[in-house]
Amino acid sequence: MMSKLTIDAARTIIRETLAKAHDMGLKPMSVIVLDAGGHPLAFEREDGAAPGRYAIAEGKAYGAVMLGMPGSAQMARAEAQHYFMTAANGAFGGKVVPVPGGVILRGDDGEILGGVGVTGDTSDNDAEAALAGIAAAGLKGDA
Amino acid sequence: MMSKLTIDAARTIIRETLAKAHDMGLKPMSVIVLDAGGHPLAFEREDGAAPGRYAIAEGKAYGAVMLGMPGSAQMARAEAQHYFMTAANGAFGGKVVPVPGGVILRGDDGEILGGVGVTGDTSDNDAEAALAGIAAAGLKGDA
Amino acid sequence: MMSKLTIDAARTIIRETLAKAHDMGLKPMSVIVLDAGGHPLAFEREDGAAPGRYAIAEGKAYGAVMLGMPGSAQMARAEAQHYFMTAANGAFGGKVVPVPGGVILRGDDGEILGGVGVTGDTSDNDAEAALAGIAAAGLKGDA
Amino acid sequence: MMSKLTIDAARTIIRETLAKAHDMGLKPMSVIVLDAGGHPLAFEREDGAAPGRYAIAEGKAYGAVMLGMPGSAQMARAEAQHYFMTAANGAFGGKVVPVPGGVILRGDDGEILGGVGVTGDTSDNDAEAALAGIAAAGLKGDA
Repeated sequence: MMSKLTIDAARTIIRETLAKAHDMGLKPMSVIVLDAGGHPLAFEREDGAAPGRYAIAEGKAYGAVMLGMPGSAQMARAEAQHYFMTAANGAFGGKVVPVPGGVILRGDDGEILGGVGVTGDTSDNDAEAALAGIAAAGLKGDA
Repeated sequence: MMSKLTIDAARTIIRETLAKAHDMGLKPMSVIVLDAGGHPLAFEREDGAAPGRYAIAEGKAYGAVMLGMPGSAQMARAEAQHYFMTAANGAFGGKVVPVPGGVILRGDDGEILGGVGVTGDTSDNDAEAALAGIAAAGLKGDA
Repeated sequence: MMSKLTIDAARTIIRETLAKAHDMGLKPMSVIVLDAGGHPLAFEREDGAAPGRYAIAEGKAYGAVMLGMPGSAQMARAEAQHYFMTAANGAFGGKVVPVPGGVILRGDDGEILGGVGVTGDTSDNDAEAALAGIAAAGLKGDA
Repeated sequence: MMSKLTIDAARTIIRETLAKAHDMGLKPMSVIVLDAGGHPLAFEREDGAAPGRYAIAEGKAYGAVMLGMPGSAQMARAEAQHYFMTAANGAFGGKVVPVPGGVILRGDDGEILGGVGVTGDTSDNDAEAALAGIAAAGLKGDA
């Protein structure tokens, strides 16, 4: 059992997420890996990605970790009850971006090890690349 | 007559809210008790609850105390007039989460003694657990 | 080995820190326990403590966890190089209070499990009570 | 002539800065590379580094890029005129950490390509490791 996310795992997730994005022919991507407390372990932004992509990647991953809800569930909640996600975002200093591409990282027992945030293409493509990267690192992703 | 909330009452509210949540089979819960000024008296987050649950619990209780409106009334207002709750939230630094689970604590004469915020399961289940905890402390809850 | 701080350990730390403070005849106290990500697990503020004590307790514990430096080391750095601690505080949203009473919680292997923040009396008395509470929970404190 | 920092160069800087830190026997390190607009290109935090090290690393690099002053010059200014650096920091949202370890990245003609922020050991050791990583990437560092 892996009880704490390591920098080696984070590097693998980023490398393999980008490799998958290249295979899929996606636009330039940005990928962040946060620990179980929502704090950055590793980040990369590819050449050609817009300068603000750090904040979007972080916001996707941060919401997933802090709320314990993946991006798809946050988006569903935002569509059903937008004022709740707006308010939750205020409570987190505006750092939550509630769309797919924010993925919860889980260990063997389902415990939350951290989160991954991917941005650059459509939200669904972002999430697909993230899940491939997470699987390549031997972890479970909840997108 | 009880004119001011005590730490002993706050402890009872938290313990009994969690006991009720366990009886109901709810997810891991977080419970906060605020005083009449909206300031924290006591808080607990159960094992397995997401790390951001403090801010959600506080936001539910804070809105109840500061606006003098329980979570259900805040939600009704948000649904009828979302820009009002968004604006009110701006005025309160983004700390208000306008959904059930934010409960006003009242004394014998109806005076506001503080607020309770509960989060972890559905908003309605959160509120039901809070009311049980408040009743067990001999106080009145306005959910 | 305890790899993650539990709510039961947090409750013990708070109860025993307050018991020690009572034995020492200290003023009304506030105690917070944060997890390894700097997020609140449990908090209590005793009757008679000022309403702003949550933020002071959190600020002491938050700096300890986020910087990996106990309150005494933060204070020494602030006295030697005040602009560094001012800047670090800006980087953490103003949430760091760099004085004794902010204690790092460590496990058997020295890993950081979280932090404790105590406020109410002199900073040195705050730290002494915290260390007693931490020891009673079978953990190591770095004050 | 290299007119824009690439993600490949950023990866090399991080890898070689960490290699140098290992050679020097430093504590667990965190390294960020910002582009010429002060926006993150890549970041890594080693196992054992405190969770708040992202903000410190970013603050060192951000000040270097945004002010066009390396960390050592910022520290000298802070010691001579602390209110200036405090005010500058206010203007930059509190994101500047004015100590060594914040290094300006320059191209062949002296143009600013970005910045590197390193934190984990003493500020001087942080800067030494950064300069080695930058040199390994074939760039010039102004520490």
